[in-house]
Amino acid sequence: MSDINLEKFEVGYDIPAKPGMNEADIQTPCLVLNLDALERNIKKMGDYAASHNMRHRIHGKMHKSVDIAKLQEKLGGSCGVCCQKVSEAEVFARGGIKDILVSNQVRDTAKIDRLACLPKLGARTICCVDDLANVSDLSAAATKHGTEIECLVEIDCGAGRCGVTTTPAVVEIAKAINNSDGLKFSGIQAYQGAMQHLDSYEDRKAKIDVAVAMVKDAVNTLKADGIECDIVGGGGTGSYYFESTSGVYNELQCGSYAFMDADYGRILDKDGKRIDQGEWENSFFILTSVMSHTKKDKAIVDAGLKAQSVDSGLPVVFGRDDVEYIKCSDEHGVIMDPNGNLKVNDKLKLVPGHCDPTANVHDWYVGVRNGKVETVWPVSARGHAY
Amino acid sequence: MSDINLEKFEVGYDIPAKPGMNEADIQTPCLVLNLDALERNIKKMGDYAASHNMRHRIHGKMHKSVDIAKLQEKLGGSCGVCCQKVSEAEVFARGGIKDILVSNQVRDTAKIDRLACLPKLGARTICCVDDLANVSDLSAAATKHGTEIECLVEIDCGAGRCGVTTTPAVVEIAKAINNSDGLKFSGIQAYQGAMQHLDSYEDRKAKIDVAVAMVKDAVNTLKADGIECDIVGGGGTGSYYFESTSGVYNELQCGSYAFMDADYGRILDKDGKRIDQGEWENSFFILTSVMSHTKKDKAIVDAGLKAQSVDSGLPVVFGRDDVEYIKCSDEHGVIMDPNGNLKVNDKLKLVPGHCDPTANVHDWYVGVRNGKVETVWPVSARGHAY
Repeated sequence: MSDINLEKFEVGYDIPAKPGMNEADIQTPCLVLNLDALERNIKKMGDYAASHNMRHRIHGKMHKSVDIAKLQEKLGGSCGVCCQKVSEAEVFARGGIKDILVSNQVRDTAKIDRLACLPKLGARTICCVDDLANVSDLSAAATKHGTEIECLVEIDCGAGRCGVTTTPAVVEIAKAINNSDGLKFSGIQAYQGAMQHLDSYEDRKAKIDVAVAMVKDAVNTLKADGIECDIVGGGGTGSYYFESTSGVYNELQCGSYAFMDADYGRILDKDGKRIDQGEWENSFFILTSVMSHTKKDKAIVDAGLKAQSVDSGLPVVFGRDDVEYIKCSDEHGVIMDPNGNLKVNDKLKLVPGHCDPTANVHDWYVGVRNGKVETVWPVSARGHAY
Repeated sequence: MSDINLEKFEVGYDIPAKPGMNEADIQTPCLVLNLDALERNIKKMGDYAASHNMRHRIHGKMHKSVDIAKLQEKLGGSCGVCCQKVSEAEVFARGGIKDILVSNQVRDTAKIDRLACLPKLGARTICCVDDLANVSDLSAAATKHGTEIECLVEIDCGAGRCGVTTTPAVVEIAKAINNSDGLKFSGIQAYQGAMQHLDSYEDRKAKIDVAVAMVKDAVNTLKADGIECDIVGGGGTGSYYFESTSGVYNELQCGSYAFMDADYGRILDKDGKRIDQGEWENSFFILTSVMSHTKKDKAIVDAGLKAQSVDSGLPVVFGRDDVEYIKCSDEHGVIMDPNGNLKVNDKLKLVPGHCDPTANVHDWYVGVRNGKVETVWPVSARGHAY
């Protein structure tokens, strides 16, 4: 779907593969997507959201890909995209996404100015606010450009980052937004980011119960004041079933479900089963090659710190229990290979510890089906960090 | 020096700054270089190498920048570049670097073919070998393209990655290289990567003593067999003084000295003093802005996991002991600000835990002098991981 002309790119020099190539000829290290698994994940979450009368605003900051966001629209019925940076929002808007939430604060003057220009690209533009002082800056920019910025008041419901923590603060900011030219109060942002990775279903539920209580109190108090919330947004791959049945959230913001990763995979569903053993499939891998095997029990592969982020632990070798990725340096990974099963140029698929910052290191996704490269998508918003 | 036309780039959308801008207007998060400190570091290491009759082949995998490599040639008298990937070598060769060592194994057929084409770009081309089977593959490719690949035999002198571990293995591979068309044996690669970050000078020296003994044995045995080593290469920022006075190494391969980072900065020199407190200056920073401060004692900044690698620990706030970076998530950093000294839009300079994989996340270096943006350099080999 990407309109990038791959013809000008040289395999090996600046792109790991081209459509039509055999999977075996992909240059490593690079990101590989199992397109069948990706599509099944996307459709499954879309069906879930639809059957629970929830909108799904997919989290574009996870994959930073316009192509995947459009696949999520087509197969998963997503209502739009959320992302974390104005420059990411610009990439999605220029790529044709029509409904974009910057699920984050925008404070710098130049960034606010760019945000106010986004509606001119045809995109509904929404951002988060947690500070009265921000309201007047956003209003001035929207007024200057003759556009409208919709604002969600962010509640810190446990993540300990941005957001206000009391209902009076929500109401005060909501009213200020509605009293400001160029702005419109559109609801609440309440993403409990800190509990998504807790292993136990019950521990996650306990944290979300607190969040839901905070959000309900804010929404009801606003309603009593005559202020409606069009959007009550939150929910991630480790919690979407709680928000969907909360009676107060109406938009999910899941990201990692589409790819899965080793850290998310370890958390348990309500039956105590890992979520990568049935709920979601691993569709996202670092493809790596053995490049040295001078020690009998250790193979060295070509994917190290520059091919992934290890913030949430080392990658796991997919589909093999005979070898283990045990150490990571800049350009090398050490694979424990006790039986000497690996040989030079063997390829392994690694499930990275954390998908978001791992995708952020790469320029390309190589989409594979039935042993062939079907598509090569740019990580469209890579480098768009501002 | 870069020949990229910055005119077509939009500040904020795809580049953090343009030359001539005030430092205060740089878009965050991004990489900032203190050009004065960078130049002093480069000149100091160049002077050291010259006064010790050592060549300095700077490690281009650290910064992945053609512009900085050329500055190291000009101010530091470097003899060439080493890097870890064929695609990196291609970037440096196309950028005008004339002497390039891929200080790593090249095993994949397509990569070997590209390596054999590098001399056609005017670059002396050297790679490492640790396996006899590789010799014939390299020879076939060089012969096919009518070029010469110089080969170093890599000794694993303690890093536990690639490399052979015995002198007979070195000699066997060296002879095979010299008996192969298109190849030339040029010496030994022996980089002790695992000890560079040991805090104590004596601990590092003990590890290097082992390495030096292994290298001396190999070099002397080769010499007795009539085989000379043009290059005996190794040495990093935590050890270059050992290799320089070893009597056997003749090329250094330092990288991090030019930038410094928090993890390297903590190691101690022979007087027990941190090496970032006199030996080297921090010239490399992540510039970040406060974007939310709803809690009295915590500020949220815009540099998280997508602006750095935390494999070697969290970043340190430069020049301030009143605030501390205590937590990192995808797009946010949490700054402990016990006295509430920070306000929204304040900027901080972060010294990243590990410079190499942090540079690898970004597309641009913003070079600053006297409060002005003097230059914006691409991270030329970013994404060239193959």
